[in-house]
Amino acid sequence: MIVVMKHGATPEEIQNVAARLRHFGFDIHVSAGVERTVIGAIGDKKPAILENIEALPGVERIVPILQPFKLAGREWKPEPTIVQVGDVRIGSDEFVVMAGPCAVESEAQLIETARAVKAAGARILRGGAYKPRTSPYSFQGLAEEGLRLLALAREETGLPVITEVLSPKDVPLVAEYADILQIGARNMQNFSLLREVAVTKKPVLLKRGLANTVEEWLMAAEYILSGGNHQVILCERGIRTFETATRNTLDLSAVAVAKELSHLPVIVDPSHGTGKRQYVAPLSRAACAVGADGLIIEVHPRPEEALSDGPQSLTPAQFSHLMGELAAVAAAVGRRVAQAARVGASR
Amino acid sequence: MIVVMKHGATPEEIQNVAARLRHFGFDIHVSAGVERTVIGAIGDKKPAILENIEALPGVERIVPILQPFKLAGREWKPEPTIVQVGDVRIGSDEFVVMAGPCAVESEAQLIETARAVKAAGARILRGGAYKPRTSPYSFQGLAEEGLRLLALAREETGLPVITEVLSPKDVPLVAEYADILQIGARNMQNFSLLREVAVTKKPVLLKRGLANTVEEWLMAAEYILSGGNHQVILCERGIRTFETATRNTLDLSAVAVAKELSHLPVIVDPSHGTGKRQYVAPLSRAACAVGADGLIIEVHPRPEEALSDGPQSLTPAQFSHLMGELAAVAAAVGRRVAQAARVGASR
Amino acid sequence: MIVVMKHGATPEEIQNVAARLRHFGFDIHVSAGVERTVIGAIGDKKPAILENIEALPGVERIVPILQPFKLAGREWKPEPTIVQVGDVRIGSDEFVVMAGPCAVESEAQLIETARAVKAAGARILRGGAYKPRTSPYSFQGLAEEGLRLLALAREETGLPVITEVLSPKDVPLVAEYADILQIGARNMQNFSLLREVAVTKKPVLLKRGLANTVEEWLMAAEYILSGGNHQVILCERGIRTFETATRNTLDLSAVAVAKELSHLPVIVDPSHGTGKRQYVAPLSRAACAVGADGLIIEVHPRPEEALSDGPQSLTPAQFSHLMGELAAVAAAVGRRVAQAARVGASR
Amino acid sequence: MIVVMKHGATPEEIQNVAARLRHFGFDIHVSAGVERTVIGAIGDKKPAILENIEALPGVERIVPILQPFKLAGREWKPEPTIVQVGDVRIGSDEFVVMAGPCAVESEAQLIETARAVKAAGARILRGGAYKPRTSPYSFQGLAEEGLRLLALAREETGLPVITEVLSPKDVPLVAEYADILQIGARNMQNFSLLREVAVTKKPVLLKRGLANTVEEWLMAAEYILSGGNHQVILCERGIRTFETATRNTLDLSAVAVAKELSHLPVIVDPSHGTGKRQYVAPLSRAACAVGADGLIIEVHPRPEEALSDGPQSLTPAQFSHLMGELAAVAAAVGRRVAQAARVGASR
Repeated sequence: MIVVMKHGATPEEIQNVAARLRHFGFDIHVSAGVERTVIGAIGDKKPAILENIEALPGVERIVPILQPFKLAGREWKPEPTIVQVGDVRIGSDEFVVMAGPCAVESEAQLIETARAVKAAGARILRGGAYKPRTSPYSFQGLAEEGLRLLALAREETGLPVITEVLSPKDVPLVAEYADILQIGARNMQNFSLLREVAVTKKPVLLKRGLANTVEEWLMAAEYILSGGNHQVILCERGIRTFETATRNTLDLSAVAVAKELSHLPVIVDPSHGTGKRQYVAPLSRAACAVGADGLIIEVHPRPEEALSDGPQSLTPAQFSHLMGELAAVAAAVGRRVAQAARVGASR
Repeated sequence: MIVVMKHGATPEEIQNVAARLRHFGFDIHVSAGVERTVIGAIGDKKPAILENIEALPGVERIVPILQPFKLAGREWKPEPTIVQVGDVRIGSDEFVVMAGPCAVESEAQLIETARAVKAAGARILRGGAYKPRTSPYSFQGLAEEGLRLLALAREETGLPVITEVLSPKDVPLVAEYADILQIGARNMQNFSLLREVAVTKKPVLLKRGLANTVEEWLMAAEYILSGGNHQVILCERGIRTFETATRNTLDLSAVAVAKELSHLPVIVDPSHGTGKRQYVAPLSRAACAVGADGLIIEVHPRPEEALSDGPQSLTPAQFSHLMGELAAVAAAVGRRVAQAARVGASR
Repeated sequence: MIVVMKHGATPEEIQNVAARLRHFGFDIHVSAGVERTVIGAIGDKKPAILENIEALPGVERIVPILQPFKLAGREWKPEPTIVQVGDVRIGSDEFVVMAGPCAVESEAQLIETARAVKAAGARILRGGAYKPRTSPYSFQGLAEEGLRLLALAREETGLPVITEVLSPKDVPLVAEYADILQIGARNMQNFSLLREVAVTKKPVLLKRGLANTVEEWLMAAEYILSGGNHQVILCERGIRTFETATRNTLDLSAVAVAKELSHLPVIVDPSHGTGKRQYVAPLSRAACAVGADGLIIEVHPRPEEALSDGPQSLTPAQFSHLMGELAAVAAAVGRRVAQAARVGASR
Repeated sequence: MIVVMKHGATPEEIQNVAARLRHFGFDIHVSAGVERTVIGAIGDKKPAILENIEALPGVERIVPILQPFKLAGREWKPEPTIVQVGDVRIGSDEFVVMAGPCAVESEAQLIETARAVKAAGARILRGGAYKPRTSPYSFQGLAEEGLRLLALAREETGLPVITEVLSPKDVPLVAEYADILQIGARNMQNFSLLREVAVTKKPVLLKRGLANTVEEWLMAAEYILSGGNHQVILCERGIRTFETATRNTLDLSAVAVAKELSHLPVIVDPSHGTGKRQYVAPLSRAACAVGADGLIIEVHPRPEEALSDGPQSLTPAQFSHLMGELAAVAAAVGRRVAQAARVGASR
C-alpha cells in the first residue's frame, strides 16, 4: 500500500506511521517530496490494517495497490470458469439464454411460458417463487408451491430452472428444487445469505447491486467462493442513476470490466436493466456484442395480466424474434446460440 | 391513477384500457387532448394493477396519484411518533445523541467508550456485534460475546444500547440483549429481515439504503409497521454519488422530506455519511439545524487501533467538544441536548 | 397537464387553481378522489405556466403530459433524419465511423493518423483544435493552426473533418474549416453556443452532458433545430455515476431511448465513455448492436506521447482490427460499414 | 506520482516506464512487491505527463499525489480569502445572505422585492437578467433591460447586486452593471467564460456543476484565479442524484470539504438545491450550521406569477421569518447575520 502524508505532516507523525507499518510486518520506503511525504509499504495485509494506518495523525490517505479480491480474480485463476448445469455450459462459447416469467403465478402460466421459451431456444427456465417487493402489499410469490411448479416445468420441458432465494433460512428448501440459486440485486451484500448459498455447492447467479461497483460485486462473489462454492455466475442488471427514461441504467461496460478482472462468467438482465419491453431487444443484442456469456429475460404469455413486471416482459412471439436476432449477433462475435428446440421435447 | 396513452393510440386501445380499469373497479374519466388521450381512474388499488395497466398496448405511462405508503405517512397519522427507550424519548424536543464504537472489540474498549460518551451527554450506546463487511476477510464482529459486552456496558452506565442485526435467524438473540435493533443500509430492502424485526416489538432503527429514495425508505418502514411494530426510527446515513471526497453524500434534504411525509422520528449518521473524522462535527451541527431528531456517532478511544471504521471515529475528547457545539445549535432551533452526565452514574 | 392537489387542500385552493387554469385558456376537469383532488387541464402551454400553477397554495405537484420537445421529436417528424456530409450519410443504413486523435498536435501526427484511419474504413476524421481541459495548466489545443491542419488532412485524404467548438465567438472561424461542428458534453447546455451553431447551417454533433437526461439532451437539440439548423447528430458519451472502473458509464440504453423519441441520428463515443483503451472495442461492438448510427473513436499513432487522452486512444492497428469486428456486427443487425479504403486515395 | 504496474508486467515494460519517467525529469524509486511493481516518481509535472505514462504498456494505473489545483488551495494560501463588495465582507465572521427574484421581470417586481429582502436583512440583491433555460421556448430574461433595472434597484436600496452571465461576449456589459458576476452550474466548465470573467477583476460567484466533484470545482476556480482575478466565491447548489423528491441533492458535506481544501469563501443556494419552497428554510439553517459563509435565496412577492422558479421562491414574509431563524443559528456557531435594515434606507 502507499501512505500519502498530509502537507505539513511533522517528522514525528511520519516516524510514527513508519514504525506502525514496520510493527505490522511491512517493508517500507519513505520518499520525501517537496509537498508531500509518501511511504511505500510492501506486504500482504488485512483490510483493517489499512484503516488503522489511515486513522493515524498526519495521514492524508491510503492507496491500496493490490486488488481486494483473490479467488474471484484472474490473477488467481487466469482461465475462464465454466459453470455447468445439465448439459448447459455457462461461460463457454455458447451464448446461453435464460427466460421465463418474473413470478411463477400458476401451473398453466408457467408451463405455457416454459414450452414457449424452450421452443425459441432458451436453455434455462427462470421464474420467481419468492419475490422481493418494494411494497409489503404487493404479491410476494407462491413460495414452496412456486418451487414445486418449477420442478414440474423442468420435468415437462427438460429445462433446468433458476429461481431467487431471499432469506438464509429458505436456502435448503430452494436448493432442493432449483438448479441455479439466484441472489437478487438488493441482496448482493446480504452476507449471511451469501454464506448460506456457499454451503449448498449449487451454482449461484449473483446480481450486481444497484449501487455497487464492480469491485464490490467481485468481493460479494468472494464470499461465496471463499465459502467453498466455486460455481458463481455474475449478472449485470443495471445501476441506479439520475436517468429516469429507463428503470435502471444498464452498465454494459461493467461486463467488459468484470470479464477482464475475473474468470467468472457474466450474463446480463436487460429486463430489469431497462424496465421497458421495447428496449429489451436492442440491449440484449448489445449485451451479446459486448461479450456477455448469456442473458436472463422475462417472458410472459400475457404481460398485461402479470402479477409483477408486466411492462418489461416480452411476449413469447417477441422473445422468439429476439432469439433470431441474437443468433446473428452471436455469430458475429464468434459465439453460438442454441438452436430452437422442438416444442414439448423432453430431456 | 392517471393513464397517459401514447400519441397515436387507437380508439380500440383506449377502449380496452378503459374497460380494463372499469373491470378493476375504477371510476374513470377519459380526456382526449390534441396530442394525447389521458384517462383518470379513481379508486384505491394494489400496485400490481398499475403494472398490468402499464403493460397494455397503447399505454405510454402510468402516473400514480396516491402515496404508496400508508402507515408510515402523515396522512395516516399527522402527529409525530415518539419512540421511548428507557427515559429517552426519540422524536421529542430532546435532540438525542447515540454514540459508541463501530464494533465491540473488547470489554475494556467498550466500557471505556461507554463511560466517555455518557460523560459527554450521549443517551444511547451504540456498538456492533455483527458487522457487515465488504470483504469476507475483514473482522466480522464478536457476535454473541459482543452482545454480552453491550449488556455489561448498559449495566455499568445505565445507557440503553443499540446494535445491528444482519440475519433473520439472529433477531431473537439480538432482541434479547438490545434496546434498539439496527437495520443497516445494505439491508434496508432485506424484506425477510424487516418482517422478523417487526415481530419483536422492539424499537427499530432503519437506515436508508445507499441507493434508495425517501419513498422506498418509507416503504421499507411500512414493512415493519404493517408487521405490527410501530416503533421505527429512520436514519439518514448518506447516499452513493459520483463524489469521492466523502465516503457517501449525506443527504440532509432527505431529513426535511422524510419529516414532511412521515410522522416517524429521523436521525442522522454523520460518521458513515462522511467517512472522515474532520467532517463529522460540521455535518452533525447541520443535521441538528435541519431538524433531525438526533444523531448516531462513532467514537473510539484510539481510532488508529479500531478493528473497523477508525478513520471516521471521533476520539472521546472530540466527541465531548462536539456535544458542546450541538447544545448551542439545538437551542437555536428550539430543542435541547441532554446535559453531560457524571461519569459512572448508573440508572 | 395534470394538477395533483395536496391531501387536505381546501375547496378555495381547488377553486383558485381551477380559475387560474381557465384564465390561462385550459379546458379543465376536476376529479375529487378520496384522498386527493386531481385537475386535468387540456391545452398547449409554455413551461412557465406549469411552474406558476405548481407555486399555487394547495398544489402538491404538476404532471406534464406532453413531451417538452417538438422539432426533435418523432411526433413532429416520424421518419429518420439523415445528415449528409460529402458522400457520407449519417443515419442511413451505413454505420459511420469517425476517428482520429483527441487533439491535433502536429501536421505529421495528424496526417499519419488520418491516413491510417481512412485505410481502416473511417469515413470522417476527428481532431480537436480547441480542447476543454479540467486544468488551466493542461494543453489547450493549437486553435486556428489546428483547424488549418485539419483542412490539410482533409485535402490529403478526402475525409470530411469534425472538430469541437468551445466558444460562441469561435463559431464562424471553426465553421469555415470544419464539416461538422462538435458541441462537447460540458457545453450541452451552453445555450449561447447552441444558438450560435444554429446560425451556421453546418451539421452539428451534440454530445450528451454527463449529468443530463435524454429529455434534456433533446431539449438542447431543440435549441439548434428551432434556430433553423436541422442537421443535428446526437452523441452518447457516457454519464457520470458512482462507478470508477471506467471514466464514465456509457449508457447504451440512451441510444435506444433517443432513437425511439427522436428522428435524429445517434452515434456513440466509446473512447470518452470508457476512458480505457481495452474497453473501446467491446463497447463499440455493443453500440453497433444496440442500433447506433455510428461511432467516434480516438486513435493516436503513439498513445504514450499523446498530449491528451492517451490512455483511451487506440493505435491504428487496434483500430483496424476493430473495424473488422464492426463489419461483422453491423451485418448481423442489417447495416454495413464502409470498406477499408486504399491509403492516400482522395475524393 | 505513483505508477502501479500490471500484475505480470515484464521487466522491459518496467524499464521502459522508469526510463520515460527519468526522461521527464522525475527522481524515481522502483519497489517490486510480490504481485505488483510500483514506481514512485518525485517531481512537479504537467497533467499530460500523467496520461502519457498511463498510456505506456504494462501500466495498470497512475496515482497522483499532489492536488491538481494550486492557487485555489490552502497549501498555497492558508488564511481565508475575504471578498469585499461595498461594505459586505464575504468570508468574514458575518454570515451574508443574498436574496431576490430568480429573474428580473419588471421594475415594480424588482424594487418591491429588493426593499423587502433588504428590510429582512439581506446584504446583496440577486436577480437574473440572462436566464439559462432548459427549453428554448421558456422566458430567457430581460437582458440589458434587466441589468438596468438591477442598477436602479441598487440605487434605491443601496444593496450591491449579483447577476448571472451566460456568454463570454456579454461579460463586459454585465460587468458594467453588476457588483458580482455569477457563473451558473451549467457553465462551471465553460472555460472560455471563466477566462473572460477572470479579466474583469470583478468578484465572481462560481456555482458547482451538477455533476462535478469538489476537486473539479476548485480547478474551475483555478481558471479564474490563474487569470489574475482572486475574488472568487464558491457556491454549492446541489448535485444530481437518483433522488427525485428534491430538484437536486444539496451536498452540504461539500461545503466542509471545500473549506478544508480551499481558502475561498463558500456559500449555499438552498433554492436550486431543493427546488421546493418548504425545504428552503431547514436547509438554510443547516448550511449556516455546517460552516458556509452565506446563502443565496430566491424571493418573489408573488411566486405563483413568477416567470421562472416560482415553486422554490420564498415570499417576503417567509424570507423574513427565515432571517430570524438564521440569526439564532449563526450565533450558535459564532457568526452574525446583518440586522434587519430600515426599509428604503439608502447607502
